Amino acid sequence: MLRITLANTDASAMGDQMYEFAASLYPICRSITGNGLRETLAMVAGRIPLQTFEVASGTPVFDWIVPKEWNIRDAFIADPYGTRLVDFRQSNLHVMNYSVPVHSKMPFSDLRPHLFTIPEHPQWHPYRTSYYQQDWGFCLSHEQLLSLDDKAEYEVCIDSSLEDGFLTHGECYLPGQTTDEILISCHVCHPSLANDNLSGMAVATFLARALSMQELRYSYRFLFIPGTIGAITWLARNRGPIDRVRHGLVLTCLGDPGTFHYKKSRRGDAEVDRAAAVVLKHQSEPGEVLEFSPYGYDERQYCSPGFNLPVGCLMRSVWGTFPEYHTSADNLDFIRPEHLAGSLRVCLSIVDVLENNACYRNLNPYCEPQLGRRDLYKSTGGGTIGEEVNARLWVLNLSDGTNSLLDVAERSGLPFGLLRDAAHLLHENGLLARVDESPNIPPAARSRRETARQF
Amino acid sequence: MLRITLANTDASAMGDQMYEFAASLYPICRSITGNGLRETLAMVAGRIPLQTFEVASGTPVFDWIVPKEWNIRDAFIADPYGTRLVDFRQSNLHVMNYSVPVHSKMPFSDLRPHLFTIPEHPQWHPYRTSYYQQDWGFCLSHEQLLSLDDKAEYEVCIDSSLEDGFLTHGECYLPGQTTDEILISCHVCHPSLANDNLSGMAVATFLARALSMQELRYSYRFLFIPGTIGAITWLARNRGPIDRVRHGLVLTCLGDPGTFHYKKSRRGDAEVDRAAAVVLKHQSEPGEVLEFSPYGYDERQYCSPGFNLPVGCLMRSVWGTFPEYHTSADNLDFIRPEHLAGSLRVCLSIVDVLENNACYRNLNPYCEPQLGRRDLYKSTGGGTIGEEVNARLWVLNLSDGTNSLLDVAERSGLPFGLLRDAAHLLHENGLLARVDESPNIPPAARSRRETARQF
Amino acid sequence: MLRITLANTDASAMGDQMYEFAASLYPICRSITGNGLRETLAMVAGRIPLQTFEVASGTPVFDWIVPKEWNIRDAFIADPYGTRLVDFRQSNLHVMNYSVPVHSKMPFSDLRPHLFTIPEHPQWHPYRTSYYQQDWGFCLSHEQLLSLDDKAEYEVCIDSSLEDGFLTHGECYLPGQTTDEILISCHVCHPSLANDNLSGMAVATFLARALSMQELRYSYRFLFIPGTIGAITWLARNRGPIDRVRHGLVLTCLGDPGTFHYKKSRRGDAEVDRAAAVVLKHQSEPGEVLEFSPYGYDERQYCSPGFNLPVGCLMRSVWGTFPEYHTSADNLDFIRPEHLAGSLRVCLSIVDVLENNACYRNLNPYCEPQLGRRDLYKSTGGGTIGEEVNARLWVLNLSDGTNSLLDVAERSGLPFGLLRDAAHLLHENGLLARVDESPNIPPAARSRRETARQF
Repeated sequence: MLRITLANTDASAMGDQMYEFAASLYPICRSITGNGLRETLAMVAGRIPLQTFEVASGTPVFDWIVPKEWNIRDAFIADPYGTRLVDFRQSNLHVMNYSVPVHSKMPFSDLRPHLFTIPEHPQWHPYRTSYYQQDWGFCLSHEQLLSLDDKAEYEVCIDSSLEDGFLTHGECYLPGQTTDEILISCHVCHPSLANDNLSGMAVATFLARALSMQELRYSYRFLFIPGTIGAITWLARNRGPIDRVRHGLVLTCLGDPGTFHYKKSRRGDAEVDRAAAVVLKHQSEPGEVLEFSPYGYDERQYCSPGFNLPVGCLMRSVWGTFPEYHTSADNLDFIRPEHLAGSLRVCLSIVDVLENNACYRNLNPYCEPQLGRRDLYKSTGGGTIGEEVNARLWVLNLSDGTNSLLDVAERSGLPFGLLRDAAHLLHENGLLARVDESPNIPPAARSRRETARQF
Repeated sequence: MLRITLANTDASAMGDQMYEFAASLYPICRSITGNGLRETLAMVAGRIPLQTFEVASGTPVFDWIVPKEWNIRDAFIADPYGTRLVDFRQSNLHVMNYSVPVHSKMPFSDLRPHLFTIPEHPQWHPYRTSYYQQDWGFCLSHEQLLSLDDKAEYEVCIDSSLEDGFLTHGECYLPGQTTDEILISCHVCHPSLANDNLSGMAVATFLARALSMQELRYSYRFLFIPGTIGAITWLARNRGPIDRVRHGLVLTCLGDPGTFHYKKSRRGDAEVDRAAAVVLKHQSEPGEVLEFSPYGYDERQYCSPGFNLPVGCLMRSVWGTFPEYHTSADNLDFIRPEHLAGSLRVCLSIVDVLENNACYRNLNPYCEPQLGRRDLYKSTGGGTIGEEVNARLWVLNLSDGTNSLLDVAERSGLPFGLLRDAAHLLHENGLLARVDESPNIPPAARSRRETARQF
Repeated sequence: MLRITLANTDASAMGDQMYEFAASLYPICRSITGNGLRETLAMVAGRIPLQTFEVASGTPVFDWIVPKEWNIRDAFIADPYGTRLVDFRQSNLHVMNYSVPVHSKMPFSDLRPHLFTIPEHPQWHPYRTSYYQQDWGFCLSHEQLLSLDDKAEYEVCIDSSLEDGFLTHGECYLPGQTTDEILISCHVCHPSLANDNLSGMAVATFLARALSMQELRYSYRFLFIPGTIGAITWLARNRGPIDRVRHGLVLTCLGDPGTFHYKKSRRGDAEVDRAAAVVLKHQSEPGEVLEFSPYGYDERQYCSPGFNLPVGCLMRSVWGTFPEYHTSADNLDFIRPEHLAGSLRVCLSIVDVLENNACYRNLNPYCEPQLGRRDLYKSTGGGTIGEEVNARLWVLNLSDGTNSLLDVAERSGLPFGLLRDAAHLLHENGLLARVDESPNIPPAARSRRETARQF
């Protein structure tokens, strides 16, 4: 039996590495297509085996069409003396993502409709996009907006291109004993935004790295995809893998100091929903389980009614509820190594439940077996039992072949790990049989796996 | 699609009209039979198309028998000098309803067992009935009782008659696209009592009037019936309509300032129960949903186990919980036009849910359809969506052909009207198909309807 | 119909008798085998018909083996002058139950590992056992331990025997109209401990006595058994009775002043679970229903997955939660006659529910029957109904042949006894038919019963 915990590794060191990885990705100007996205995926590929895919602009994907590829080299607003007032080189958030090219001098009145600020946070500038409606714009601080001379003429330049090209995404596949898959998905389209979603990318990358060192029951597919159109494109072209998805998680906003939030899948009672609830209940950090709603990240697509995949979303602070969300304040100061490490720990705990959840059958179903004889009970009566013995009694009592360890965890209120270890020990002592031993593990699973790591 | 709201009309004006109607009915001495009841129904018939029915005394109706008809002309208790101390002409509540005739002089000791008061409210007099046990009695204030000379002799007169006659009730039938019926029932047997139940009669009358101006999916049957025996008589003689009842409401106590209470049908999960709960949740006034119980108004009969009809009861203050209940203080000061208007608004909202509830099927079930292209989404990304877009996402996500709009309302927590409008818009845009379009709308529904209005 | 209540008897007198019975049992040194157990069962047999069974040491019972029989005559720790410092004759708790014989002089350092105290309660001594691991020990107050001279040598004597013999248990069987059984189980292995479990033995004995004076629908089997090994032995050898168990209760800790606790069976929704919940809700004393857990008393064995019997556990204070638990302070001062009487009353009320629970069918299912005509309603309208009439309306409304009286109690929130009486009265008046009249009551039930009382 596999125990998947961060105790195996150095949690603190992992936190630092994830933070450094996020910091190295921070300056890149990502979008839903383009070279920033390719550069990002190349950096992920430096840490885990990653296959990248490119889908041509114009390709129909369900109700959508893969858009033109967007690239940008430079952008600025300059005053009449040529001084750059707003400069893409200082922050890629200054340009509305997917802005069409523009280069002209214009009076303030023509420029003004293209300027976006956050009056409530006058020193921050917002993050804006216009993927599907051709437009251009600049994001700046409200303070700077107020300082502009509305009588002056400005030089406006966005040196971008919007041309036929490709939509890029990356996949990391870790084969396990079965071809049943666990899908881990994160969006990679946000430019210099740290919590949303460099944190998700870092946790996904290091989760893949941690799992690649383990013998796994499930196969794992990590998707590094542009939000919405990336998920739609992947779903439109991967019906085979989709049919093998047994559980899934969307990872985002995992570096801030907020409490954990797990948003359930559309099903609401999927195994991953229950696993996440059990894990969050027993974490050292507080956590909350949210009901499904159709707005959010790519669980919107995975949980669309035609697919209805058992995919939930793990976050710390919930998007839209923290003021830094989609602003220049979602920067590297907003995320911390220890929060990334805690998020990785929760991911591993959820994976641990999914990997180890199974139905057992008590081989002595009539009355309790004599645990004392097997040194599985305290020897001196009259006191009370410890939690390990209690966990053994729970597993024995409920293991009638219909209750999984997750059922036992829910009914007993005990941590899953305690029950997993109890089941392991009882199994070793010949008191339990595993009911659902999967008979169809391909003999070559191990070698296939080694191969797969080469791509 | 039909939107049924009071916004179409002048709520304030409707409140005044309902109050005036209740005021005009107030002086009449109603009972479960008799001319007061006939006079009342005639006044209802002046406002909506109403057919009246008369069932002869002695007719067996299930375990009961239609009683003799009661009429009263005068009643009083006079002192030895002929001064009327208690006078039916001042308040018809002074006489116990269904009192047999009496005219004699008697000492106080003989009179006393026939006098009813409310010691806790010494200035009010109670409302009492003795329908099924021949008796007579007077209701007076406790103050007045204490002022009577217990040595004196009194002249006691009740000029009533209890003879073979008829039990009368009224029906207003509004045909809709289908013959499936919604039953609206109110009791009309209480004499000068305003909240219980002139308020119910007024709201039912004006609800019928409002609906008669609309194209309706369901047919509606409004019953104006004496309590208990009227419902039993109707149920015993109308097996056809009973089989067509899909939803129903008993209306009572709807004019006082109390919060709304909806008492569920015996089924507890009938569509009308869920519709009422969703409506009360989103009303501007607070509301509470009560579990079914077998005591109350005519839902007792509709929800008897042999029928088990999906009929709930809408009230403001619950009978028996307000001190004015069944006393002379339940008068025209206790009900207000604005409360009647609010009650009518809630009734219309419940009807709106029932009329518009349907299952839809998302025609793009794989991933979200591209709402932006259809101008059904905000065009500039990076902010958050409004509640209209949120409602569209909910309807699209849950519309797999099994969830009704009421299901969507319950799961999303959004107001039904928002989801109704979202479904309408998505349907217009070719994104939804209605699953349960009733194929059996008779082509002549419209003309039948016009005809029906003539009776 | 049988009404089973303690009102038939003198509750107060019963409390005194139960207390006296517990007091008479208190001095006996019981264990899971041996003469103390036999002596105890003989005293039970003096009050109710009891059959005793003996199973030989070495008999395999499921995963266990019936242990050797333990008997003890004397035990002490004496100082160098021969003065008994710790003396079995003062409290049998002073010797660890199942201690092997020992008689030697030894320095304090050799004695110390065999001494058990309760530092938090320095004047009490604990109750310890070592049934399945050969050992010996003494229990003393912590104060006394501190007073011992750790330089001195002590004479240590335990005059016990552990030899092939028998495990003894007692059964009281009360035959009823059907062979379906209600199992009442209490453990009889604890020595001088009053609440755990002389209280359970006393309540079980007097419950059997009270029921033996009644005509019963169910047959009752009262088990007086050693904890764990006794239940396992009985279960291993009584497959026939096990198959007839319809409901069951484990009785323990029923003499202290704590509030009632009913721990549900593993099924969680067994009829006895629901009956106990309904009874505790309406008792004069507060009560709480606990979820099942696999640690506790002999419900552990009855609710093992192979049997999964509908057996719950009734307690006042829960084992392990009161400081006196398994100490010398669980003595005759800790239990009181009035608490024993209250416990017996609750047991009888649960039995009353089980005996009288049934499904009825309303013979007038269409509308309410006219209760007033049958003098089952108040005669003067306008007021409110009493709880008796309310109970009649509930029974009539829900009695469609699928709802039991227990269902009616749960849905209405009314006490079971009120509904039982209502059903009885309605049945007498020809308004209800009993749906589940058991057709297979053996005609000789009565005579078999008389016979059975002879053993």
